[in-house]
Amino acid sequence: MIRLYDFWESGNGYKVRLLLSQLSMPFERVELDILQGETHSDRFHQKNPNQRIPLVEWPDGRRLAESNAILFYFAQGADYLADDPWHRAQTLQWMFFEQYSHEPFIAVMRFWKFSGQLEANRPLVAEKMERGYHALTVMEKHLKNSDFFVAGRYSIADIALYAYTHVAAQGDFDLTGFPAINAWLERVRHQPRHVKIEDEVGVSAAWPAMV
Amino acid sequence: MIRLYDFWESGNGYKVRLLLSQLSMPFERVELDILQGETHSDRFHQKNPNQRIPLVEWPDGRRLAESNAILFYFAQGADYLADDPWHRAQTLQWMFFEQYSHEPFIAVMRFWKFSGQLEANRPLVAEKMERGYHALTVMEKHLKNSDFFVAGRYSIADIALYAYTHVAAQGDFDLTGFPAINAWLERVRHQPRHVKIEDEVGVSAAWPAMV
Repeated sequence: MIRLYDFWESGNGYKVRLLLSQLSMPFERVELDILQGETHSDRFHQKNPNQRIPLVEWPDGRRLAESNAILFYFAQGADYLADDPWHRAQTLQWMFFEQYSHEPFIAVMRFWKFSGQLEANRPLVAEKMERGYHALTVMEKHLKNSDFFVAGRYSIADIALYAYTHVAAQGDFDLTGFPAINAWLERVRHQPRHVKIEDEVGVSAAWPAMV
Repeated sequence: MIRLYDFWESGNGYKVRLLLSQLSMPFERVELDILQGETHSDRFHQKNPNQRIPLVEWPDGRRLAESNAILFYFAQGADYLADDPWHRAQTLQWMFFEQYSHEPFIAVMRFWKFSGQLEANRPLVAEKMERGYHALTVMEKHLKNSDFFVAGRYSIADIALYAYTHVAAQGDFDLTGFPAINAWLERVRHQPRHVKIEDEVGVSAAWPAMV
């Protein structure tokens, strides 16, 4: 069985949990507490030199990092990624947008709040908020004319963008002025086999305490 | 002919110039001066709501943003991207690593220097340098055992990482302690039809002054 190294609060980890659940693919799940530095341990460093979750590991020892690359891998040949080159490129456009223009603002604000680092980062908050709202504005404009991000159907582009958008309020973003985003969030929630970020999916696997 | 909206100093733009040159694919090129805010003009906003170059436009009006999504699009079916799902996923892993864990530090330091914004951002420099060196360390470790990033052959993963790594010194990063990276930079430079970041490739196309 594949193993997912993960952290419950992580939207990047949730992307993988959501897709694997929708694909009905069983997986073991190892919780690493990033707030306690478990991804920076020597032991995890051996598995992912970039010291980040999510990370997927196969029984034969292969490993794959980067949430959106993991989504792409499992979606190939499945219903959540178009087959044709143009739509694949558009899917990746939105996924790179998510990692460069969305996550570093919307996810980071939420992370600072729940990890108690907001005050220490106070001088950076105004720019994080401004750039986060810019990302939401780009999404709103697109969703005014499209039910989903690519080709009018639910795909891994939606999963990638849903992960942190649906909890943006936890980073103090107000979605009231974004009706198209709110309608899209509802459409994503109603996809078959949808799971929530707090749902305990996967088979818990042990990972002895870090040293 | 396709049209590339670009900025000469941009490593993200250079990625596209390099791949199109290696594919011997003709293209028009429109220079936008991002330092003068040309990507934030109303006119460019119509083309890319995220207000960033590079952007590729086709004669039929289709457009594609995000440098690494553009690389993926043009490399499909060509020699610069593996066909099998596992190597494709590894290629994307390194490209997402580039946009999330490399570019925001190594490219941004260089940008602050040439745009005269280094002093204004002085409080952030130490973290940018630390995280940039972390990215270089991850690359060095991988390249100690591999000539290229994926499957032992030159691909768009190398193009994506070469773009800002080869000019990292312009952002004050010292590559002296990274022998595997330096050897890889040389291998990339010696690929057929390689062009430099400063090479004037593409057919210049007019884009009347912004208002």
